[in-house]
Amino acid sequence: MIWCRFRADDETGFGIVEGDRVIAVDGTPFGDYRQTARTFRLEDVKLLVPVIPGTFYCVGVNYADHITKMAALRGTKPVFPARPDIGYRANNALIAHDEAIVKPKDAGDELQYEGELVAVFGKRAHNVTREAALDYVLGWTIGNDVSERNWQAGDRTLWRAKNADTFKPMGPWIVTGLDPRRMQTTIRLNGKETDRFATGNMIFDTAAYISEVSKYCTIEPGDVMWMGTDGLPQNIQPGDVVEIEISGIGVLRNRVVAEV
Amino acid sequence: MIWCRFRADDETGFGIVEGDRVIAVDGTPFGDYRQTARTFRLEDVKLLVPVIPGTFYCVGVNYADHITKMAALRGTKPVFPARPDIGYRANNALIAHDEAIVKPKDAGDELQYEGELVAVFGKRAHNVTREAALDYVLGWTIGNDVSERNWQAGDRTLWRAKNADTFKPMGPWIVTGLDPRRMQTTIRLNGKETDRFATGNMIFDTAAYISEVSKYCTIEPGDVMWMGTDGLPQNIQPGDVVEIEISGIGVLRNRVVAEV
Repeated sequence: MIWCRFRADDETGFGIVEGDRVIAVDGTPFGDYRQTARTFRLEDVKLLVPVIPGTFYCVGVNYADHITKMAALRGTKPVFPARPDIGYRANNALIAHDEAIVKPKDAGDELQYEGELVAVFGKRAHNVTREAALDYVLGWTIGNDVSERNWQAGDRTLWRAKNADTFKPMGPWIVTGLDPRRMQTTIRLNGKETDRFATGNMIFDTAAYISEVSKYCTIEPGDVMWMGTDGLPQNIQPGDVVEIEISGIGVLRNRVVAEV
Repeated sequence: MIWCRFRADDETGFGIVEGDRVIAVDGTPFGDYRQTARTFRLEDVKLLVPVIPGTFYCVGVNYADHITKMAALRGTKPVFPARPDIGYRANNALIAHDEAIVKPKDAGDELQYEGELVAVFGKRAHNVTREAALDYVLGWTIGNDVSERNWQAGDRTLWRAKNADTFKPMGPWIVTGLDPRRMQTTIRLNGKETDRFATGNMIFDTAAYISEVSKYCTIEPGDVMWMGTDGLPQNIQPGDVVEIEISGIGVLRNRVVAEV
């Protein structure tokens, strides 16, 4: 089942994607809903960020190859996380599929994509076991954790580096019933493949993160958890188009423009 | 003017506090609203967290005396921020005035309060000058940035240390028309004053933070910015009552209980 949030004609809300149609629903996937008789052609709707989370969780480092390669670039020793320490991102930075990543005027050359699997929660999770953790996930979407590396090295909190406006593309929609251990992430820059990795190859998997976070922090329906990236992200600049594809979900595509 | 969010009888929403009465409004202070004929006695309503922010900004370190004293405790040299690097907190941790701070079972003795001035935004702010910055603030409330110091030393992202459930009391309400440079914060633990400082004695003031953040991150109505604490916070334990008073706003009071 594919959930989207969309705008069409005068309507904004959640919908179910079936083939090339979007069926509008009353309500939300996080509570009661019912399908309506209103349908739209998928190509006629504007896809929105599939959910605006109450809490926007994000795993900073979760793939060994990424940690090793980034450390080599910096000339430092790789440091692997000893436990699932969750981090955060900010809602101001969210944009939808097909919207533009705006490179700030004073950003440097090392503005980079990071393709990530995103868990979208459907039920309140408090102190859940690792075995039960995935039952709280409604479905899966794709995130691009756009990062400005020079700011990342200097900002004490990564605020600009990771959370400048438009730095968090998320979409195109939420797909239910997938197994996060069996997906593949493929990243293309201007149509050319630049990264490909097994999405499930995490140091701590999604279930481990959910279980650990839920011991201290109650996860609410609509919250999201971005699961980190692998590989060696490349620079992006105005004019570029980044596509993050995750098997079973689809493609999150965003172009880069310069701030005017 | 005093804005609250409250629950009374079957009603949940925003209200205006006048003396010992709450006047229910239709709408929100962040958009259109109108006063209704429904009023309640203040003592009969349950005050809620005055706003659930879209983005929850928080300044980590912003008072010289606090930085100096905390560094001395750790046996390190004080490090003062070179620029206004904003941080974040998480909505799961929010509780209202008079709700209980729950000390997790595995938290250590150094669970501490931090009394903070909070700016609540009423208008969208993008690239605003320092001179105009306070025009975007609807009003002011009080935050208690409860922190577990052992976790703070070890959590890479401060997630449990600062964002465990109930660690972010905010309230009791939002007061408009105040000058953030002329307030005094007084902290009482079980009725005994433990800290008192000039709220305006910040390294970078609220206007400076708003202006800097808004260069990169669009601040939305309903977002909040916690402005940091001064002094040397004390340990709190189950049975304690913490009161943060800021002149012109009121008192945020929360008791501490043990996780069961």
